[in-house]
Amino acid sequence: MQLQDMTKQELEAFLAGEMAKYEQFKGRGLCLNMARGKPSDEQLRLSHDLLTAVGADDVLADTDGTDCRNYGGLDGIPSAKKLFADIFGVSEKEVIVFGNSSLNIMYDTLVKAMLFGTGNGAKPWKDCGKIKWLCPVPGYDRHFLITEKLGFEMINIPCDENGPDMDMVEKLVAEDESIKGIWCVPMYSNPTGITYSDEVVKRMASMKTAADDFRIFWDNAYCIHHLNDTPDKLLNLLEEAKKCGNEDRVYMFTSTSKVTFAGGGIAAMSASEKNIAYVKSLITVQTIGYDKINQLRHVRYFKNYEGLTNHMKKHAEFLRPRFEAVSDALEAELKPLGIGKWVKPNGGYFISFDAPKGCAKEIVKLCKEAGVELTGAGATFPYGVDPDDSNIRIAPSFPPIEELKLAAELFCIAVKIAAAKKLLNA
Amino acid sequence: MQLQDMTKQELEAFLAGEMAKYEQFKGRGLCLNMARGKPSDEQLRLSHDLLTAVGADDVLADTDGTDCRNYGGLDGIPSAKKLFADIFGVSEKEVIVFGNSSLNIMYDTLVKAMLFGTGNGAKPWKDCGKIKWLCPVPGYDRHFLITEKLGFEMINIPCDENGPDMDMVEKLVAEDESIKGIWCVPMYSNPTGITYSDEVVKRMASMKTAADDFRIFWDNAYCIHHLNDTPDKLLNLLEEAKKCGNEDRVYMFTSTSKVTFAGGGIAAMSASEKNIAYVKSLITVQTIGYDKINQLRHVRYFKNYEGLTNHMKKHAEFLRPRFEAVSDALEAELKPLGIGKWVKPNGGYFISFDAPKGCAKEIVKLCKEAGVELTGAGATFPYGVDPDDSNIRIAPSFPPIEELKLAAELFCIAVKIAAAKKLLNA
Repeated sequence: MQLQDMTKQELEAFLAGEMAKYEQFKGRGLCLNMARGKPSDEQLRLSHDLLTAVGADDVLADTDGTDCRNYGGLDGIPSAKKLFADIFGVSEKEVIVFGNSSLNIMYDTLVKAMLFGTGNGAKPWKDCGKIKWLCPVPGYDRHFLITEKLGFEMINIPCDENGPDMDMVEKLVAEDESIKGIWCVPMYSNPTGITYSDEVVKRMASMKTAADDFRIFWDNAYCIHHLNDTPDKLLNLLEEAKKCGNEDRVYMFTSTSKVTFAGGGIAAMSASEKNIAYVKSLITVQTIGYDKINQLRHVRYFKNYEGLTNHMKKHAEFLRPRFEAVSDALEAELKPLGIGKWVKPNGGYFISFDAPKGCAKEIVKLCKEAGVELTGAGATFPYGVDPDDSNIRIAPSFPPIEELKLAAELFCIAVKIAAAKKLLNA
Repeated sequence: MQLQDMTKQELEAFLAGEMAKYEQFKGRGLCLNMARGKPSDEQLRLSHDLLTAVGADDVLADTDGTDCRNYGGLDGIPSAKKLFADIFGVSEKEVIVFGNSSLNIMYDTLVKAMLFGTGNGAKPWKDCGKIKWLCPVPGYDRHFLITEKLGFEMINIPCDENGPDMDMVEKLVAEDESIKGIWCVPMYSNPTGITYSDEVVKRMASMKTAADDFRIFWDNAYCIHHLNDTPDKLLNLLEEAKKCGNEDRVYMFTSTSKVTFAGGGIAAMSASEKNIAYVKSLITVQTIGYDKINQLRHVRYFKNYEGLTNHMKKHAEFLRPRFEAVSDALEAELKPLGIGKWVKPNGGYFISFDAPKGCAKEIVKLCKEAGVELTGAGATFPYGVDPDDSNIRIAPSFPPIEELKLAAELFCIAVKIAAAKKLLNA
């Protein structure tokens, strides 16, 4: 029987039963974390040999002779550019390899647009008055934090299984010159796990924008993070944009943070050759160069794109059962009751759960009080405000599988309690 | 006989002799570089064991349990903070450990002051109208490039063997609220090699500034880079500033770029606890964290400050003969003729040569045409303009010693030619 079909009496009995289970859980003194998309110990161990992939007796020069121990090589060593070119599906001329964090590249790119403009004589955004920014929701809290800090007005764009609502996006960017860009996690999106459809990508590439310097921040963090043998497919935005002469609106980002070590990886950006030249002209003011030794270490370890994708299959072996533990619990416990919505993703790091409206904060609170930390309710929305108080991001990667099963069980109980209370108070 | 005492005839004969030597050099097809302060191959080899200082079977957690392979640890792992606290002579609470580049930290710090202000409610500099910046000259070209790019008006401050002209500095900062800061390389300065006197440091710490948010960018890049057993001593600016209640005006920077690998090292900032808290509140928007594995690698390799200073003594063994090769040539060839001025430094990476006025460009050009690349004349001044066309930065660290001797010989010939021509045309 679905929860909504229960009588008041049935609901009260249901709630009492779940509350009893909840109190039992509370007595167990759990301390589990499903808050952040952190790789597990087993996953991190997959890359331990990276640590010694470059040793004292190795040649420490790259293919072009660049001495990776010394200054030089501003935009990345050639072999690392090649690796990322293969990941992005672009040419090496369209790639810059940076340091350890793609989030830092995105932040820097926005900061440079603020202070110096996007190139080609465009005005610095600090001199453009109010800047507005499109934020597909639910989305990545750290994206929103950057645009909030920069004082941009963020506009929520609803998403479905195909990606952002492109009717809304097209209308807004065509009309409003102060809208300068959009955040996108186009593949195995954070947190929804969906991948943008071909139509969405093509419309992103071709849409007319009132702002000449409109930019798509295409955070392709999970582009090689497949969970199974039926991966999603994503069109190449840069390629699509070229077909429409709009290639300068595209900045693509990725990193190996969840491939090797979180924080100890390497990150890269891909863009049109014109944009790459402009970015290089700015980063030469900022630094003499990024960590080429760590670039070399990664290239020597993976050898090539094939080596990298083989490595990702090992990650999937650890992640798949964890994702299944959570979706199995949701399927078994919540589906029969008709509570909540979620998608079982083919990749990425998250399961996005839409609770009945007005229940997300209560669920997160209940879980926390019983020892399971979730991403804060609202965190997946700009300013931390989910207008429906509905979305919760579940990050199943980190806990050991047995703990995860417990946490998922508790989560389902918390959802049931919050949903039943809501119906009783309706 | 000094050059200035020669008759026209003597000068002509002298010039002809040097021109003949110069032409011989040109015929040798040299290709040497004394342009940038790059460590030599021998120096880089000193740190090869750093590469495997953290291996697959090691514990990859820091002293407080921070897993260096995963997310977290925004402001640096505790053991790396301790190492840098010892380098700076401050407490760990006054340190943040970043990524691979102290120049990048300085750039970021300025950019944040522009966009968000320096904390404590201070206005963002972008909203403060024209910003002016003090630039002790000759100085580091990459410092000047940052403040030029940000559109600051740079004001040259002459230096002597004690550091910047503090009468001028004090007068300017007391009068002009739009002067927001000063670049300093206080120890073994780039390029002059001098170390700021105690009096200069104390005056920096205590001076009255019209701007409440005035900042001293104290780039202590060479603080452990002694060349001999009679090192210079530098007062601790943060400590001195505390005595005057001015600790918030101090940002100190350093890195291991010329200790381990240029670009593959780690970098840090030291400041008052209040400033550190503010910087942390901003970098948490920018990144999830810096490369903790590389921080751990450095700590495990050096063990402690003593290990680090012992390592620096090995660098000195390679650097000292190179510095001597250049100063010996200058002493032997130029001193008897009374041409030029230079200081033999006790540390750092450069010898700064002041040619007779109007000769620097000509000397650099002559060297280049005979196959020896020097730092461009003017590069040590804001906007690349040396009003006297006199200063040349010599970087002796990189070439093998035999090549360096040749390069120094050519340099002296070029100086003699330029000086003689100048006198003949006077």
